[in-house]
Amino acid sequence: MNRKANSEPSAFRGSKRTRRPVGPKHEIKRAAILQKAAQLFAENGYETTSLDMIADHLGIHKATLYHYVPNKETILYECLLASFEDIDTVIDAMRDRSTPLLDRLRHFVQALARAQNNDFGRCLVLVGERPLALAPGGKIKAFQRRLDMALRDLTMEGVLGGQLRPVDPSLVSAMLFGALNWVPRWFRPGKRLSVEDVADAFVDMLVQGITPR
Amino acid sequence: MNRKANSEPSAFRGSKRTRRPVGPKHEIKRAAILQKAAQLFAENGYETTSLDMIADHLGIHKATLYHYVPNKETILYECLLASFEDIDTVIDAMRDRSTPLLDRLRHFVQALARAQNNDFGRCLVLVGERPLALAPGGKIKAFQRRLDMALRDLTMEGVLGGQLRPVDPSLVSAMLFGALNWVPRWFRPGKRLSVEDVADAFVDMLVQGITPR
Repeated sequence: MNRKANSEPSAFRGSKRTRRPVGPKHEIKRAAILQKAAQLFAENGYETTSLDMIADHLGIHKATLYHYVPNKETILYECLLASFEDIDTVIDAMRDRSTPLLDRLRHFVQALARAQNNDFGRCLVLVGERPLALAPGGKIKAFQRRLDMALRDLTMEGVLGGQLRPVDPSLVSAMLFGALNWVPRWFRPGKRLSVEDVADAFVDMLVQGITPR
Repeated sequence: MNRKANSEPSAFRGSKRTRRPVGPKHEIKRAAILQKAAQLFAENGYETTSLDMIADHLGIHKATLYHYVPNKETILYECLLASFEDIDTVIDAMRDRSTPLLDRLRHFVQALARAQNNDFGRCLVLVGERPLALAPGGKIKAFQRRLDMALRDLTMEGVLGGQLRPVDPSLVSAMLFGALNWVPRWFRPGKRLSVEDVADAFVDMLVQGITPR
């Protein structure tokens, strides 16, 4: 339990000299805290991971931790933002009709698969539903809804435009998000398949089906 | 906290008169305990649901509870068995080549979707990975592996027999189990779609793809 005390690692030393609370160094340290927290949440669950544990694993005082993050709920929310910082770009790309519809679908699934399988994304998927409801202002739910709506809108566009069969957009979304949300539970990087391989295979199966054409 | 004391409901009264520890009445009471436990696990999470809470919600003494179940791990394991008591039948049916391969796939997905969306199945899916590892002898993992292998074997049979494209059985399985495991998180019975509708739509999308043929 006690790797803290007089042995704070260099990245966290000297914070008392910093006048402004925010700056590049502050951000680097804050990012390190978020990353470690994300790993611990994913590994041990959100409820059983305390701020003490996070501070301990970083070898810093809990008081130092509070200099960077106000509470556990905020850490989880910041993990979400960190996992998928370019959500606006991804959602804008879904609406860009100069790109063929099936290409947009593939890029979306690729972006989502990558986001869900970094430290931050794994954390979000693995902690489950309950902790996510605690995030400030229900923002994680809103975030997930935006992604869900982007996929449903694309599906509807495809159904109306004839690129897709008359499928139910809510069920396409349920199937694809289910498949993607499950990946962090079984996927291990550095094995036979990359995250991109998995995403491609999911899109191929969904688009073409698994029976011969 | 105190609906127990002198007010045990009739289903649980008179257990002291029973000589044999097991019998039809014992089983009915035991089933009621498992069902309530499953609902509470699904609602509040496994870790935060105590035996005290389960006894409280049933309006019985914790001591009475121990007459039926030895501990929380066993309850979770029994929930698994209850959710999918006919696993042998389902797996045998997957191997029965007198039924067309795609029909076997559809029946399997239907059976799994039904099993995962009753009280017991919802509990198993919603409690997440960690509690399941606690089940006696890693039996839940073994159970899940049997279902996974049955689906992979069927896919391989289809690929070799030409009914399926040369898809990767592990990714078909990952996609379909992911989609199905997600259903208890969004599905609410009695709305527009039944569990069977959802299962059918998943199979249709996977088999035919979402683009026109």
